[in-house]
Amino acid sequence: MSTNTNIRARLLISCLDRPGVVSAVSTFLHQYKANIVQSDQYSTDPSGGMFFMRIEFDLFEDGYDFEEVKKAFTSVASSFEMDWKMDLASRRKRMAIFVSKEDHCLLELLWKWRAGELAVDIPLVISNHPNLKEEVESYGIPFYHIPVTKETKANAESEAITKLHEHDVDFIVLARYMQILSSDFVGTFPKRIINIHHSFLPAFIGANPYAKAFERGVKLIGATAHYVTDDLDEGPIIEQDILRVNHRYTTEQLRVAGRNVERIALSRAVTWHSNDQIIVHGNKTVVF
Amino acid sequence: MSTNTNIRARLLISCLDRPGVVSAVSTFLHQYKANIVQSDQYSTDPSGGMFFMRIEFDLFEDGYDFEEVKKAFTSVASSFEMDWKMDLASRRKRMAIFVSKEDHCLLELLWKWRAGELAVDIPLVISNHPNLKEEVESYGIPFYHIPVTKETKANAESEAITKLHEHDVDFIVLARYMQILSSDFVGTFPKRIINIHHSFLPAFIGANPYAKAFERGVKLIGATAHYVTDDLDEGPIIEQDILRVNHRYTTEQLRVAGRNVERIALSRAVTWHSNDQIIVHGNKTVVF
Amino acid sequence: MSTNTNIRARLLISCLDRPGVVSAVSTFLHQYKANIVQSDQYSTDPSGGMFFMRIEFDLFEDGYDFEEVKKAFTSVASSFEMDWKMDLASRRKRMAIFVSKEDHCLLELLWKWRAGELAVDIPLVISNHPNLKEEVESYGIPFYHIPVTKETKANAESEAITKLHEHDVDFIVLARYMQILSSDFVGTFPKRIINIHHSFLPAFIGANPYAKAFERGVKLIGATAHYVTDDLDEGPIIEQDILRVNHRYTTEQLRVAGRNVERIALSRAVTWHSNDQIIVHGNKTVVF
Amino acid sequence: MSTNTNIRARLLISCLDRPGVVSAVSTFLHQYKANIVQSDQYSTDPSGGMFFMRIEFDLFEDGYDFEEVKKAFTSVASSFEMDWKMDLASRRKRMAIFVSKEDHCLLELLWKWRAGELAVDIPLVISNHPNLKEEVESYGIPFYHIPVTKETKANAESEAITKLHEHDVDFIVLARYMQILSSDFVGTFPKRIINIHHSFLPAFIGANPYAKAFERGVKLIGATAHYVTDDLDEGPIIEQDILRVNHRYTTEQLRVAGRNVERIALSRAVTWHSNDQIIVHGNKTVVF
Repeated sequence: MSTNTNIRARLLISCLDRPGVVSAVSTFLHQYKANIVQSDQYSTDPSGGMFFMRIEFDLFEDGYDFEEVKKAFTSVASSFEMDWKMDLASRRKRMAIFVSKEDHCLLELLWKWRAGELAVDIPLVISNHPNLKEEVESYGIPFYHIPVTKETKANAESEAITKLHEHDVDFIVLARYMQILSSDFVGTFPKRIINIHHSFLPAFIGANPYAKAFERGVKLIGATAHYVTDDLDEGPIIEQDILRVNHRYTTEQLRVAGRNVERIALSRAVTWHSNDQIIVHGNKTVVF
Repeated sequence: MSTNTNIRARLLISCLDRPGVVSAVSTFLHQYKANIVQSDQYSTDPSGGMFFMRIEFDLFEDGYDFEEVKKAFTSVASSFEMDWKMDLASRRKRMAIFVSKEDHCLLELLWKWRAGELAVDIPLVISNHPNLKEEVESYGIPFYHIPVTKETKANAESEAITKLHEHDVDFIVLARYMQILSSDFVGTFPKRIINIHHSFLPAFIGANPYAKAFERGVKLIGATAHYVTDDLDEGPIIEQDILRVNHRYTTEQLRVAGRNVERIALSRAVTWHSNDQIIVHGNKTVVF
Repeated sequence: MSTNTNIRARLLISCLDRPGVVSAVSTFLHQYKANIVQSDQYSTDPSGGMFFMRIEFDLFEDGYDFEEVKKAFTSVASSFEMDWKMDLASRRKRMAIFVSKEDHCLLELLWKWRAGELAVDIPLVISNHPNLKEEVESYGIPFYHIPVTKETKANAESEAITKLHEHDVDFIVLARYMQILSSDFVGTFPKRIINIHHSFLPAFIGANPYAKAFERGVKLIGATAHYVTDDLDEGPIIEQDILRVNHRYTTEQLRVAGRNVERIALSRAVTWHSNDQIIVHGNKTVVF
Repeated sequence: MSTNTNIRARLLISCLDRPGVVSAVSTFLHQYKANIVQSDQYSTDPSGGMFFMRIEFDLFEDGYDFEEVKKAFTSVASSFEMDWKMDLASRRKRMAIFVSKEDHCLLELLWKWRAGELAVDIPLVISNHPNLKEEVESYGIPFYHIPVTKETKANAESEAITKLHEHDVDFIVLARYMQILSSDFVGTFPKRIINIHHSFLPAFIGANPYAKAFERGVKLIGATAHYVTDDLDEGPIIEQDILRVNHRYTTEQLRVAGRNVERIALSRAVTWHSNDQIIVHGNKTVVF
């Protein structure tokens, strides 16, 4: 009689590609009676490149304890000098959303979250403007208004970091936040800040992208979701998408198209991050 | 000093999902000094479903011999009751193309083959019409004209099967062949006949799909590449794609759009099949 | 000194294709000092088919009155036996939304409406379930719960029609309403009810489309927005779109993909209808 | 009894947007018994912007002569200071193809031409390399090998221009020609040279786009078909398209994806140009 009470976990690994790594990992899991549910692997170059792996596995409820397995894995990991993490699928990541005045990306995320399409907790939303407060609170989520000016920027970031730590945040989504974050801030959450960029990068970097797209008469409007690094708009790309447009689109209509494609690309990126499907290596992402 | 003379091989596995299968396979490969280059895995249901796996691995030139490894794998395979195959990546599959009068799918395949985008050998093309003979022969490929009428169909299929065996064919592509193959013929090449269907299945099955699409005013034109089974148009889907159309398209223009989307979907399906990326299970495909 | 106070209007025409119709219409508009801003035209068959036209034009504020122009056009229209309508662009259509329990299509429309991307008024939402009441009312829109059972269906439809008339509704969107409307109801709002269908029509008609899609192993998930006619799911198609999926998608994940593509296709169809961009002819749409 | 022997013609117009232009054109055509088959129109700004129009119309065989109509239109055109052209649909444009060593774009065009999907004549192909000579000549098309070095560039262009004039060429397609044309050459064929660019412009301009795309980890590979102007890669965009890729794509596989999307975007652009569907205005195209 099946009780279907297995414990699902995920393991992400990056290391130098060396013989025996898959064997070592799968044999380890087998020893702990883990059932491998899904496994993805990518090698940049089989003769001496990087090796990336994502495994979903089930532990039996009456078998080994997750924390015990995780601890035991340390020795496998260190023998291959792995960069790794192992986590329970049931542990929902805690996601903070930063937003400015525009609500389209914010609302897409809130809807998907409420519809159960996004397996995260959302402990807080932070904005440099007060206007989305009521909307956010109607979802039962605390909203913090932290204004930012040139003079107060350092203090504002400190205040935000304090809030993020208080709420034990795992990752941050810049849902059209429109503020450039300092190196310090980015360094506090490495590979854990996702931004949505208003174009098909690399293209139309900078201000007024839709006016430029209009002037250039583009036939496609794109958006790029990426991790934030110190180099503005140059971080690892997670997802890109496009919508078809034509000469009849005004700059305003290009902007509407842009909003729609931003929602789509950002929500895919957030879904993948929240499911531990992404490994960052250098300036690229491996999305499993 | 790198000699870069490893031997690349591929292993495809289907079996009941049981604990230890990944461990057994990867440990086996490690014993034979194989380096796993890529690995994909899919379980339909971790508690008692099916397990599918595709592994690309490299053997060292001065190490174990491929045939030796393949033979030795038999015992692993039988202990898990695997349906499996292991093949050298360098062994190009031998692909026969069946064609009628229309050349668009045929030429797409011939071009990609000549451009080195399709890693197959093409020992012959068979057609029930003579009109593409010169074109095919200009690529240095033998062309066999085997006419088909209601009365001669059984004989024509026999003749085709003889030719296919003579040329040691691995799989067959129906590049708009327009003839329904008998159960006997299909049974001779199970899961090894790829067809391109002129619509987004299941939809507009039967004759005159573009006239029907025109009358229905569809906004998208699709095509479906699938393996051929006894149930006409009901075999496992490999790939589907669409092109956007509008009310201005005449039936003829819908047909042109259809030709273009057929080329795209079929050539993707053939590429995946030739790279051993597809596992058929029941009426579905797993494409790794 | 720009006054920029022109009055924008739209004219939609269907008639038999006869020489002189474009000339007659454009000369009429010129006589009334109208400036043609955009004009689209489509002929099914220049020798004796149907002719469709959509014109956007501007009247000068200090010139002819819109109602005067509209009335005067009657004589042009009758001389060509036109099916036509002329309306002010500023007159926002009054859209009713019918919904059942699922909220994704409803919320997409409400959000776009609030964001100013949808130029309609939404005087009411009707549902056969009470659960979306609070959500709808938070947008300041009246919500009517009209339960439907086999026995009460006729009464429920009557009650709905009364509400729709009271609120002077122009068109109805079935945003996953999940109820089959009677011939009487459909006949009350001909070519003015838009439905979103959970598949790439014609395909997977009927119940459990995602389970069927899963079993068939489709590689694309589609949705179709269409006008409702007496033939269930057979009305004129307005828009279709697809999302790419693969063997890893569970039935539930196919359902999520379906929800997302439904939102996209439906909101495009509603936008076009609200901007008078659609002409229905027979079982097809002309989308200008 | 219909004989269906009408004469189809096309009229393209650009001018300042002024009241009465549509009326003047359609009344003119009506006077000459022309039946308007299709009409598209676009105004950049109804109060004083640019006006663009494309009309397809039929003249009756036993009615007015095309040349007569064309001549008579001059007075309408001059009264509105139109930039215009009127041409018979039956007059196939004469297209020259310039190619270097890569054949994918060339072959796509030749194939579509032979399949009747491209209504042009192809009087010659010019290449700076000899290797595609046999292929081109197998289509019955003259092939001219005009080598280009830094020193001989001016002479080579002169020779090419001579050949183009001898063959009475209407427009030129750079099907991966890989040579930068001089201002003089471009000025000889203004708005009549179509190039396919190996990226989603503006992006990855310059050499090694696929290596750059690989390093940046893009998720989409694009191509841009555009008219050639003096500003390299900055001419009016005609069409853009993309293909989805992922981290598994090697630089070589990105290149293959690039070739496929180049073929698609270029052949659409050439089809539209050959059907007189494009009006260039400033650095943008209007595609009707």
